[in-house]
Amino acid sequence: MVQVDLNSDLGEGYGAYTCGDDDAMLGIVTSANVACGMHAGDPEIMANAFKVARERGVAIGAHPGFPDLWGFGRRRIPYSTGEIERFVAYQIGAAQGLASYSGHRITYVKAHGAVANIAAEDRSVADAIAKAVKAVDPSLVLLAIALTEQVSAGEAAGLTTVQEIFADRGYDDRGQLIARSKPGAMIHDQEEAASRVVEMVTEGVIISASGKRLPTRVQSICVHGDSGHAVAMAKHVRGALEQSAIALKSFV
Amino acid sequence: MVQVDLNSDLGEGYGAYTCGDDDAMLGIVTSANVACGMHAGDPEIMANAFKVARERGVAIGAHPGFPDLWGFGRRRIPYSTGEIERFVAYQIGAAQGLASYSGHRITYVKAHGAVANIAAEDRSVADAIAKAVKAVDPSLVLLAIALTEQVSAGEAAGLTTVQEIFADRGYDDRGQLIARSKPGAMIHDQEEAASRVVEMVTEGVIISASGKRLPTRVQSICVHGDSGHAVAMAKHVRGALEQSAIALKSFV
Amino acid sequence: MVQVDLNSDLGEGYGAYTCGDDDAMLGIVTSANVACGMHAGDPEIMANAFKVARERGVAIGAHPGFPDLWGFGRRRIPYSTGEIERFVAYQIGAAQGLASYSGHRITYVKAHGAVANIAAEDRSVADAIAKAVKAVDPSLVLLAIALTEQVSAGEAAGLTTVQEIFADRGYDDRGQLIARSKPGAMIHDQEEAASRVVEMVTEGVIISASGKRLPTRVQSICVHGDSGHAVAMAKHVRGALEQSAIALKSFV
Amino acid sequence: MVQVDLNSDLGEGYGAYTCGDDDAMLGIVTSANVACGMHAGDPEIMANAFKVARERGVAIGAHPGFPDLWGFGRRRIPYSTGEIERFVAYQIGAAQGLASYSGHRITYVKAHGAVANIAAEDRSVADAIAKAVKAVDPSLVLLAIALTEQVSAGEAAGLTTVQEIFADRGYDDRGQLIARSKPGAMIHDQEEAASRVVEMVTEGVIISASGKRLPTRVQSICVHGDSGHAVAMAKHVRGALEQSAIALKSFV
Repeated sequence: MVQVDLNSDLGEGYGAYTCGDDDAMLGIVTSANVACGMHAGDPEIMANAFKVARERGVAIGAHPGFPDLWGFGRRRIPYSTGEIERFVAYQIGAAQGLASYSGHRITYVKAHGAVANIAAEDRSVADAIAKAVKAVDPSLVLLAIALTEQVSAGEAAGLTTVQEIFADRGYDDRGQLIARSKPGAMIHDQEEAASRVVEMVTEGVIISASGKRLPTRVQSICVHGDSGHAVAMAKHVRGALEQSAIALKSFV
Repeated sequence: MVQVDLNSDLGEGYGAYTCGDDDAMLGIVTSANVACGMHAGDPEIMANAFKVARERGVAIGAHPGFPDLWGFGRRRIPYSTGEIERFVAYQIGAAQGLASYSGHRITYVKAHGAVANIAAEDRSVADAIAKAVKAVDPSLVLLAIALTEQVSAGEAAGLTTVQEIFADRGYDDRGQLIARSKPGAMIHDQEEAASRVVEMVTEGVIISASGKRLPTRVQSICVHGDSGHAVAMAKHVRGALEQSAIALKSFV
Repeated sequence: MVQVDLNSDLGEGYGAYTCGDDDAMLGIVTSANVACGMHAGDPEIMANAFKVARERGVAIGAHPGFPDLWGFGRRRIPYSTGEIERFVAYQIGAAQGLASYSGHRITYVKAHGAVANIAAEDRSVADAIAKAVKAVDPSLVLLAIALTEQVSAGEAAGLTTVQEIFADRGYDDRGQLIARSKPGAMIHDQEEAASRVVEMVTEGVIISASGKRLPTRVQSICVHGDSGHAVAMAKHVRGALEQSAIALKSFV
Repeated sequence: MVQVDLNSDLGEGYGAYTCGDDDAMLGIVTSANVACGMHAGDPEIMANAFKVARERGVAIGAHPGFPDLWGFGRRRIPYSTGEIERFVAYQIGAAQGLASYSGHRITYVKAHGAVANIAAEDRSVADAIAKAVKAVDPSLVLLAIALTEQVSAGEAAGLTTVQEIFADRGYDDRGQLIARSKPGAMIHDQEEAASRVVEMVTEGVIISASGKRLPTRVQSICVHGDSGHAVAMAKHVRGALEQSAIALKSFV
C-alpha cells in the first residue's frame, strides 16, 4: 500500500497573536512543523501544540527560522553559515526541551521561510542546517524540499532525509517551486491540487506546470496552515488521498 | 579532603554587548552558569562559552531567567507558574542544543535574577522551576541558593539538589541573603570574603553578619562575573581555597 | 445638538500578524487610538493606519503601552513611574514622527492595557502618563477612562482631558469598570449595549449594572476593535447614536 | 576663524548593557548622535543622554539604524526603501519625544551603521532617509558622510546638509572610507589622526591614504565613542583643533 506523510507549519502565533487554526490542522496532518520562538512561536504556543499533537498521535518537528519576528522569518538576512548553525541548534534544542515537558518528542527538523528557501538553492546554507541537526541529535530526520540542495546536504551529512512536495504550489520543469511572484506559483483550486497530489504520490513524480513528470521520492506533502482556506484545502487533500487508498502516516 | 565547586554566571552579553570577562572567569571557576537568550545571551555567545568551557574542563549549567532582555531578567514580572515552567523548559532545551553543538553537555540548571529570587521565597515558583528541570531531563542537577525554597522544591521533585553560597554577599541570621538595598549586603573586601568562604566551606556553615553559624551543606560557591573587579575577587577566593587545601571540583 | 466621539484601538498587529479589521473600523469611528510599537504595532502598520485615517477624516491618537510585545501590554510589569514617563514619551514621539510622515497629526493620547488600568487606580502612574504627554506636547488631549485617576491627573497637569465610557463593558456603582473576571463585565448583546450608550450620552451619566446613574461628562465612547464581532458591535452602536440624532464627531 | 563640529555616536547601550563612556564623550563633543532604540538605546538611556547634553550645551541628533538589536544595526538587512522611510521616521519621532521630555531639542539626523553605509553608496536608500527626515521635520539638518550619496540626497531633498569626516578612518583616492577589512582602514595613532584632522579642516580637503587632497566642505568630525581608547582619541583630536585655533562649535 502506498503511504505518505501530510505536514503543515503550526504554532506560528506569538503571544496574543494567532496565525492559522492549529487545532483544526492537528486533526488533519500526520506531522506538525512547530515554530521555535525566533521567527514566530513562544513557549506557551509551542507547549500547547506539542501537547495536542501528542494526544492526537501527530509527529512533531522543530521548524527553525531566521531570528526575525518582525519579518516572520521571511526576510533574507545575511547571517553567516556559522550563525545559522548556531541559531538552528538553539531552536531545535528549545523545541526538544518543551516537547519533553509536553510528554512528546521532536523526531524531525524542517527549516522555515527565508532560511529554507536559501538552503534549497545554496548548498553551504543547506550544509549549515544539516550540520546543526546532526550536532544536536543525529537521529533526527531532515524534512527537505524535494529535488533541492536541502536533500543533498541532508544525505551528505548522513541524516535520514525525507522529501516533501507542496500541495498548492506550482513546479517548473526542473522540479523547483515557481516563485510566488510568477504566474502558476499557487494552485488555488482544491480539486486540481488534490488530484495532482494523488498522482504525484501514486506515481512517485513531481508534475510541473507544463506537465513534465520528474521521478521523485514523494514522502511527505506540505499543506499550508496559515491562510483563510488552509483548513479546507488540507481536508480536501487528505480526503482525496484516503479515497485513493493512500495511507496517511508520519514518516517517523 | 574537603571539596567544593566554584560557579559563576557567564555568557551574559548580547550581540555586540559584552558583560564581564567570560574568558578570564572560565580559567577560574569549575562550573559556568550560562544565560540562555531570554534575559541575556544569544546563540553565538552561548556556543562560544560552551566550547571554551569544554576545552578547560569546566562544567556547564543552563541559567534561565525571565524573558526580559531590557531588564536583564531582574524585573519581577508577574508570570504565572505555568508560564515559568514553559520558558524555563525552553531555555534549558536551547542550552542543551547548543551544548551538543559545542561538544559539551549541560549537567545542571541554576535560575537567574528575579525568577531565582522569587523562587528562593515562594515555593510555588521554586516548584515550577524544579518541575521544568525534571520534565526536560531528570538527571539534571538543580543548583539552588542554600537554605531557601529552591532547595526544598528540588529535593521534593527528586532532583539532585546542590546548595550554593555567595562569596561576596552578607547573610542574615536565618541564612538568607541581605537585600542589596540594605547595609551589609555586599562584602567588598577580598580578604574578608575569601577567609569567610574558607571557613564556611571547611565547617559546613553559613556565617551571618552577626556571626551566627548555620549548619549547611556548602557544595558550591558563587562568585560574580559581571562587575569590574569580579575577576580579581574570584581569583582571590580560589587562591584562598587552594591554600586551605580545599579541592576545587565541579559537583557533577 | 448632542455630540460625542467614537474611539477604538487600532494598528494592533505586528509584522505578519493582524489584529482586528483596521480598515473596517476606520470607516466607523471618529478617533483611532494607534499602538506605538512597544506592546503592538510597527512602523508599517502605524503609517498605514495614519494614512487611512487621514483619508477618512478620522482623528488619531498615540496609544502607548508597556514595552511587552509578548504580553500585548497586558502584563502588570513593575516599571517605575520614571520609566513609564520615558517610554510613554518615546511612544508618543514615534507616533508623531510617523503621523507627520503620513500627512496627519497626533492630537491626543490614550494609554493601553495594563498601564492604563494601573493609571485608572494609581494616581502616581496616572501622573507619570500626564507628565509625559505634557512634556512632549502640552496641546495634546488626554483621553481618559471616565471617573478614574486618569482624569484627575490629566486635569491637574493642565491637559485638556476628555472622558470616555465603554460601549460593551459593565460598570459598578462607583462608575468603575467591572473586572473582566466577574459577572457583568461584558455586554455581549448589541441592542442592549447600543441603547445603554445612547442613554448615557444623552443624559450625561454612567449607568451601573444595578441601574445607578452617575453624572459624568461623556465625551467619547470606546468600541473594541480586536474581537470577532467587534465591527458589528461598533456599527450597531454608531447606528443607534445616529438614529438618536447624536452627532458623531472627534473631540479635537 | 575656522570652525568645525565634533560629533560622536552615543547612547548605544541597552538596559543593563553599557557601550562606551557617554558621560566622558559629552564633555568633549559638540554634537551627540543618539541611538533611537531599534539597533541600540532605550528610553532610559536616550533621556539621560539628552539631559546631560542639554546641561553641557551639546547639540543632539537622532541616530536611526536598522531594527536589529542583535546585530547592533550592522547587518545589511534587505529592507525596502519604504520600510526604511518609515522606521527612520519612527526613530526620529521617538527621539524628538524624549528630547522634549528632557528639555532639549533634536536638531539633526545622522544614519547609523549598515543603513548609513548603504546610503553612502545607494542613492535610493539615501533618498529614503532624506525623505523621512523631511517628512518628520524639514528644519532638521542631515549630517552626511562627506562626498557620498547621502550628501546628494540631502541636498536634492532641500535639507540643510552638513558633511562629516572621520578622525580615525583612512580614505581612498575618491574620498571614500577604506573598508574596515582592508589595510589603512583605521588610524590608530592619535598624533597622526589629530594632525591629519587639523589639516583637513584648515584646508577644506579630505586627505587620502596616498596623500591626494580632495576639496570638501569639512563641517563636522566624527570621533568614535564605543572603543576602549575612544575617549583618549577624542580628547586628543579636540586638543589639537583647539591648539590650532579652530573653533569647536555645533553646526546648528
